[in-house]
Amino acid sequence: MAPILPPAMATVPQRDLGRGGGAGGERDAMIRKLCIVGTGLIGGSLARDLRRLGAVGEVVGSSRHAANLERAADLGVIDSFDTDPGRAAAGADMVVVAVPLGATGMVLERIRDAVGDDAVITDVGSAKGSVVAAAQVSLGPRLPRFVPGHPVAGTEHHGVDSSVERLFERRRVILTPIGETDITAIERVSTMWRTVGADVVEMDVAHHDEILAATSHLPHMLAYALVDMLGSMKDRTEFFGYSAGGLRDFTRVASSDPQMWHDICLANRAAMVDAIDRFSSELDRLTDAVRRGDGEYVRTVFVRAKAIRDRYS
Amino acid sequence: MAPILPPAMATVPQRDLGRGGGAGGERDAMIRKLCIVGTGLIGGSLARDLRRLGAVGEVVGSSRHAANLERAADLGVIDSFDTDPGRAAAGADMVVVAVPLGATGMVLERIRDAVGDDAVITDVGSAKGSVVAAAQVSLGPRLPRFVPGHPVAGTEHHGVDSSVERLFERRRVILTPIGETDITAIERVSTMWRTVGADVVEMDVAHHDEILAATSHLPHMLAYALVDMLGSMKDRTEFFGYSAGGLRDFTRVASSDPQMWHDICLANRAAMVDAIDRFSSELDRLTDAVRRGDGEYVRTVFVRAKAIRDRYS
Repeated sequence: MAPILPPAMATVPQRDLGRGGGAGGERDAMIRKLCIVGTGLIGGSLARDLRRLGAVGEVVGSSRHAANLERAADLGVIDSFDTDPGRAAAGADMVVVAVPLGATGMVLERIRDAVGDDAVITDVGSAKGSVVAAAQVSLGPRLPRFVPGHPVAGTEHHGVDSSVERLFERRRVILTPIGETDITAIERVSTMWRTVGADVVEMDVAHHDEILAATSHLPHMLAYALVDMLGSMKDRTEFFGYSAGGLRDFTRVASSDPQMWHDICLANRAAMVDAIDRFSSELDRLTDAVRRGDGEYVRTVFVRAKAIRDRYS
Repeated sequence: MAPILPPAMATVPQRDLGRGGGAGGERDAMIRKLCIVGTGLIGGSLARDLRRLGAVGEVVGSSRHAANLERAADLGVIDSFDTDPGRAAAGADMVVVAVPLGATGMVLERIRDAVGDDAVITDVGSAKGSVVAAAQVSLGPRLPRFVPGHPVAGTEHHGVDSSVERLFERRRVILTPIGETDITAIERVSTMWRTVGADVVEMDVAHHDEILAATSHLPHMLAYALVDMLGSMKDRTEFFGYSAGGLRDFTRVASSDPQMWHDICLANRAAMVDAIDRFSSELDRLTDAVRRGDGEYVRTVFVRAKAIRDRYS
């Protein structure tokens, strides 16, 4: 691991920050040594903000891809890196796992024996049931120090080059602790997210997965399905010119990372299928009304939907 | 009809413009007297641009609602108005019907006997099969002077207060003439739209309705259905905070005018139902793959859809 001087810390002596964290790390917001496993949009943006705010001493990155890590170091997002998550996490008092959901279990297993008793581990996965199940299998005695988390932020872009400052300001971070989770660990993770401007809420694992399936995972799947359907039709090259701005906005999420969304759809499979079934019933009723020319039904649904969107969005 | 001095025409003597159009109206781009039936977002924006560019002498508005007309006159979008479309269209050399689709047939009937032989009639409806059928029933000897049209422009807003300049610049306008349509009438309508910066294309009626059902009408229906489904769930007040920006973009079109979209869905019913069936088959296959954990299928669809959107949008 080659240490790189963090530009954001230039005015704050790094050794003092290191000491400030130390054994009393749960006393304040300061993170002595942060390990980010998965230096992409979310992990990179979090590291940028904690450094900018002087809330972290040292940042170590880990990723399967050395090129990602070199890029993150070049951008000044991390100080040093290691492709092995265990070695990267050694000595860290905060480990943020920001990898695709399919890789979470493996990463947790690698860091379990590498971190000390004072370390808190959290993740940023968009589905929480599968993460909690993986943690229960992989973390052993470290399970109480693991806080399942989900920052509801991001764009259709991905990768450390898309990471930005202030991504989490006024965004929600949902924590889904389980019965075993330490209160102090929850507090450390809450404090970290509040430091970068997020609004932290706690929620039951299953409730999180149900809400996110309906509000986020389902829209992504509908957008991917619609674009794939349009792509199978003639004249597809012209399609985006025939729909004003509507189609472009509607399908924006279909430009998201396919591997990440593949992982989310499979990880949150049960809630996903429930949400799709609920949506399909709604669409079937509406389609039947259109087919039989029941204008009253169609108008009622459209009027109600417009009122809901105008009120809550 | 109370004439109002059009501010946009202040530097151009109105009488000269009137003469320029006159009997030789098909020689050049000039519209002597424009009648806009339906002074909303589209009609109002068209009138604004033609006036700004000095391409029209006089603009008369018509609407079922006198308040809309008074507002349009106050905004300087029209010179005068009449709630009766026949009286408003009398003496016009260009009549643009920009009312909800459900009202088109009735409006065409009212203007049929009011306009002279030199008048060209066009519309801006988002579905064309139903408009052509209405024109065939309602226009009698005026049918050859009717050019079915669809400016692919607009936002989720509506009403003359949402009308803006340059709405049509670099946007597509689709004309769907039928066998009876006069070439000179097509040229006059094309010229009008090109004058305000649009790219004019001609298309078969059925092809237009099929493409628009897939690219525009279907996404609107999916967005209305999704928002209505979310509205039926618990915790709906919180939903838009749990989905980053994705849900807001995805459902933007559900804030569109419900009456207008009710009319479009019913007017374009056959193509709509075909598009929904095609979409539902695609979604069913994807859902089955998620249900049985067929990651390869899910990944293939997502990768393909992302490539299509990134390439064409």
